[in-house]
Amino acid sequence: MESTDRISTDNGIQIEKFKQLVGLASLINSSLDQSVIRMRAIEAAKTLLNAEEGSMMLIDRNTNELYFDVVAGETGTLLKKVRIGLDQGVAGWVATNAVPQIVNDAGSDPRFYSAVDKAASFETRSIIAVPLLFQGRVLGVLEAVNKITGPFTQEDLDLFVSLSDLVASAVENANLHEELREAFFGIVLALADALESRDTYTGGHTQRVRHYCQSIGTALQLGKNDMEILLLSAILHDIGKIGVRDAILCKEGPLTREEAALMSEHSKKGAEILSNIKALRNVIPSVMAHHERFDGNGYPDRLSGEDIPMFARIIAVADTFDAMTTDRPYRKALTPAEAFAELLRCSGTQFDPDVVAKFIPAIPEETE
Amino acid sequence: MESTDRISTDNGIQIEKFKQLVGLASLINSSLDQSVIRMRAIEAAKTLLNAEEGSMMLIDRNTNELYFDVVAGETGTLLKKVRIGLDQGVAGWVATNAVPQIVNDAGSDPRFYSAVDKAASFETRSIIAVPLLFQGRVLGVLEAVNKITGPFTQEDLDLFVSLSDLVASAVENANLHEELREAFFGIVLALADALESRDTYTGGHTQRVRHYCQSIGTALQLGKNDMEILLLSAILHDIGKIGVRDAILCKEGPLTREEAALMSEHSKKGAEILSNIKALRNVIPSVMAHHERFDGNGYPDRLSGEDIPMFARIIAVADTFDAMTTDRPYRKALTPAEAFAELLRCSGTQFDPDVVAKFIPAIPEETE
Repeated sequence: MESTDRISTDNGIQIEKFKQLVGLASLINSSLDQSVIRMRAIEAAKTLLNAEEGSMMLIDRNTNELYFDVVAGETGTLLKKVRIGLDQGVAGWVATNAVPQIVNDAGSDPRFYSAVDKAASFETRSIIAVPLLFQGRVLGVLEAVNKITGPFTQEDLDLFVSLSDLVASAVENANLHEELREAFFGIVLALADALESRDTYTGGHTQRVRHYCQSIGTALQLGKNDMEILLLSAILHDIGKIGVRDAILCKEGPLTREEAALMSEHSKKGAEILSNIKALRNVIPSVMAHHERFDGNGYPDRLSGEDIPMFARIIAVADTFDAMTTDRPYRKALTPAEAFAELLRCSGTQFDPDVVAKFIPAIPEETE
Repeated sequence: MESTDRISTDNGIQIEKFKQLVGLASLINSSLDQSVIRMRAIEAAKTLLNAEEGSMMLIDRNTNELYFDVVAGETGTLLKKVRIGLDQGVAGWVATNAVPQIVNDAGSDPRFYSAVDKAASFETRSIIAVPLLFQGRVLGVLEAVNKITGPFTQEDLDLFVSLSDLVASAVENANLHEELREAFFGIVLALADALESRDTYTGGHTQRVRHYCQSIGTALQLGKNDMEILLLSAILHDIGKIGVRDAILCKEGPLTREEAALMSEHSKKGAEILSNIKALRNVIPSVMAHHERFDGNGYPDRLSGEDIPMFARIIAVADTFDAMTTDRPYRKALTPAEAFAELLRCSGTQFDPDVVAKFIPAIPEETE
């Protein structure tokens, strides 16, 4: 009786653990953000195995090292700089051999690597470590340390291997997504650069406008999502110029009325270029409206005040500030201080006064 | 004794089921491809619940319908066209109410919708259906039909809800990834289009070259990955022209030696533009080499024969074919038949004979 009871209770615990695992798996896999996955994986490791600490290390294939790369604010920011060779520590061994390990007396294991403990002012007693395997490739190591309720067991290892399979998928998906994101931003930036290369006077303009927008976005405490929309809008604001002829785009001197009209098509054209891209629908309004004026005398729609999308009002200031502080064929660059004065003079007519008031303190006077 | 034994056995089965679930979850989450996820989710539903059939339906938010969109080759291609209103069937009810349901006698349930059975020549007896929920939003419905070993139970429902949580994350991640992919391709295409808008004679060139490359890629039975590299290369092959001045790009008449030299920089320039984008590293060689000639008299590196990357040899043929079959300032377009003759004449000198031999039958004579 007693032994079947125990088995039944143990089984009950196992079921609970597996239910817990499935819940944690859903949570981990519901993000494509590497740092979110990492934090959740660490929490899952601790919860599932009743461990004091958890960690997730990834392999840097350039240096063949494991790194923690712990996100800011997390306990153990000290670990951030620690890198472990693939021949160091239990984690290094697990990464190299792709075999899960339980070490219930860390001090007596010759593989134990105390440098990490020192860096984190921590005392490791027991370790359970499993490789993060995706389609036969080792991506990193998932580790839990110091089981609170006794030694790590084979059941713990089974659960942990299952968890690491789920984490490995999440890590791989996040990698793929991140690579695509990089490609997306890369092509956008590369093309903005290439566009500028036609006009020697505007070289670096897009990058600087992006930089100014980032400063003001930070000052406005924009969330991650809004910041991304603002920066994409900044990068793409002049993309409509891709269709403008050199004779107008690069003209050294004032444009005729007709040329100016063609040139001012670029904001509309830009919006048009982006119109078929679902993921960029939030960017279009600011690209469209970055030449609107606060007093309603801008283009293309003569919008005024708060009818102009917020991010377009920001780009308008950043764009003009950069134009003023760089040399042009027909005049030398203003100093930042002179340009600030000009922004203030046109605050309320050309520019949103709130944006100007936020912009000036956000940009250092000796700006690049 | 007997009853604890049974509990212990039942628990043992539950543990096995949960282990199975975790394994299936890893499998489902190891893809960002909607159709792969769908197939694996259906297989998982069948396996986990001992059911005869499984299905996964997603909600089309434009029409408020559930659709199967079953991939080719799968059993039940007949279902592909079936769409279910959110007020129809058990699945519609589950999608609308976001509440899991067991229906062990389908015939007597007023919600049962027999049209799907008719479309698939199938007889539904029992149904278990759960909403695919991601952060409170219903993405679709996961369903298993006709349990082989008896009625569906509460334990089945628990497992199925866990599975659907995991599938929902996978579906959502795939959606996000797909959206980013669309954005990436969208911006690349939009910019290629915009680039062409500077030169009235080449309008649509990029799209046509892509189309020809797709035909020849199909004829060569390229895998999905290679096809993608080929098509991206085709779209981006002239991207280096973004930096070429109009005076050269749009000149109506032969170029001077100097102008031609500048123009021929575009393949190198294109490779340079793409060089910082990790995800495009496979595209660069073909962009770089699409003006190399099979006999070694091309540019920029005077490569010859098989030293020229395969996809560059394909693009060279597609590119020239399109140039020949469209009007130019200095000559009318050739007919496709005339252009084919010209390709054959230059086969082995300008072009790879194998590519020409594959190209001609792949392109219909009355090509657009």
